[in-house]
Amino acid sequence: MIERHLRTSAFVPAAAALLVLHAASVAAETPAPARTMAEVLAAAGADDWRPLDPEQTLYVELDAGRVVIELAPRFAPEHARNLRQLVRQGYFDGLAVLRSQDNFVVQWGDAEGKRTLGEARGRLPPEFTTALTADLPFTRLPDADGYAPEVGHSNGFPAARDARAGQAWLVHCYGMVGAGRDNDPESGPGTELYVVTGHSPRQLDRNVALVGRVVQGMEVLATLPRGTGTLGFYEQPSRHVPIRRVRVAADVPAGERSRLEVLRTDTATFQALVEARRNRRDEWYRVPAGYIDICNVPLPVRTD
Amino acid sequence: MIERHLRTSAFVPAAAALLVLHAASVAAETPAPARTMAEVLAAAGADDWRPLDPEQTLYVELDAGRVVIELAPRFAPEHARNLRQLVRQGYFDGLAVLRSQDNFVVQWGDAEGKRTLGEARGRLPPEFTTALTADLPFTRLPDADGYAPEVGHSNGFPAARDARAGQAWLVHCYGMVGAGRDNDPESGPGTELYVVTGHSPRQLDRNVALVGRVVQGMEVLATLPRGTGTLGFYEQPSRHVPIRRVRVAADVPAGERSRLEVLRTDTATFQALVEARRNRRDEWYRVPAGYIDICNVPLPVRTD
Repeated sequence: MIERHLRTSAFVPAAAALLVLHAASVAAETPAPARTMAEVLAAAGADDWRPLDPEQTLYVELDAGRVVIELAPRFAPEHARNLRQLVRQGYFDGLAVLRSQDNFVVQWGDAEGKRTLGEARGRLPPEFTTALTADLPFTRLPDADGYAPEVGHSNGFPAARDARAGQAWLVHCYGMVGAGRDNDPESGPGTELYVVTGHSPRQLDRNVALVGRVVQGMEVLATLPRGTGTLGFYEQPSRHVPIRRVRVAADVPAGERSRLEVLRTDTATFQALVEARRNRRDEWYRVPAGYIDICNVPLPVRTD
Repeated sequence: MIERHLRTSAFVPAAAALLVLHAASVAAETPAPARTMAEVLAAAGADDWRPLDPEQTLYVELDAGRVVIELAPRFAPEHARNLRQLVRQGYFDGLAVLRSQDNFVVQWGDAEGKRTLGEARGRLPPEFTTALTADLPFTRLPDADGYAPEVGHSNGFPAARDARAGQAWLVHCYGMVGAGRDNDPESGPGTELYVVTGHSPRQLDRNVALVGRVVQGMEVLATLPRGTGTLGFYEQPSRHVPIRRVRVAADVPAGERSRLEVLRTDTATFQALVEARRNRRDEWYRVPAGYIDICNVPLPVRTD
């Protein structure tokens, strides 16, 4: 909502207004209760939320604050395993953010190429897609997508699937974390990670391994100064943004952990939230969109 | 491209690889020359570029640098006129950015409500859409869109049109500038402006007047600290980000102007650029998308 600043931020449900459907919209428009996202979340039960798995959660500590990443082992099991290995060896501690390209990504890694892999692997299979099996959780979005036959959410991650090709994959929305690679598809073992900070670069889907998403602390990464070199790399090492250390949450004393819960995406509550965002029904909106882009679906996080 | 940092950034055209078409794609896939965006731009002629009209260009001066906004009088003539009036009265000078909401917008205006409108108007017609007339420039994107029947570019602005409704409108991509309003549709005279700094909030389309776009200086706005209050407003006035002054470029001595040119969007060069981005053909990409979202189309700017 783009209110003027003097306004209250109260959301008041208004009568359902004009519904607009376009060719790309595949869902039949059914009468939906006129609820706002705030109302949907207020009515959510304890079972609608889940804690993060500490073994699949990374804390990236920068001077400006902590960035919490949830890994996606269902989609990139080898990368998740290798990343935890790298983290536990202290691979990232003292490295730096090397790149911040406006409306695209930030990226960190070993600028001087001095770190050793230790027990971690230097090459990994290209986990750009995964086999679409019956057990893959998938809450399909009711709207069509330009980049994939179907999009939706899998365990809280924005994802796509292609039944004909028998594939599923994570998609490049704001906050998604991937493993940078060279032209060689197996050259991205997780030693350089990037995070999407701009409009979703969906052209990267299926071309690189997404390994998780930032669930807290995006503002720390998104506000980093943009690099002035090619592709947004910082031209002077003095501009590099230090990474104090990276830890697996499971290795962090309980009292120092970020106690976060994320909204489950396989629930009626989540589907109501999607509908609330497909058609905004507060007094400010004049024309509900009747559609939502996969990367515009909020993935709520709360402190437990 | 998410290269690892040691790599060169050279783009080398590769043989056209697997083309993927989805239901939402309406264009027939025709063989296209395998050119990269860099190659397309290198081959562009002088006529492919146009200067900004100084009378339709605003300079917003912040401590961190200048933000250059191109107004869109074809879509929001009353807002463009009122904005120039406000600017020329010094309405914005000494005001501040009041809001920075992560993955959404920054917004500035008169926090204390002390400025007077002078010769400017306090209410304006809701220029959320414009009549779709035959003279409206429109280079249609070959791909479908979820939010509108057709999307494309009009004089360098991302836009949509609906022939049946007889309407056209600007769309909310990264860098677009709009006039915040209250629930009253006529309450957004341009005294509070917002700029999109996150994933395109297309649900705002047709709900608020877009008045232009930032053609240079987005990094200044996008890296502002996020506000911690509701909707990203800064909670303490001390956090407000001062706006030194705003000027119409035509009022600025020639030597102090930003000499920018933007790529025309009604040219074969632009269409080649779109195709180069729909299907990336360098050695890094394994799977060309075969599609492009309207907000992923680059709108190149250069210094003349």
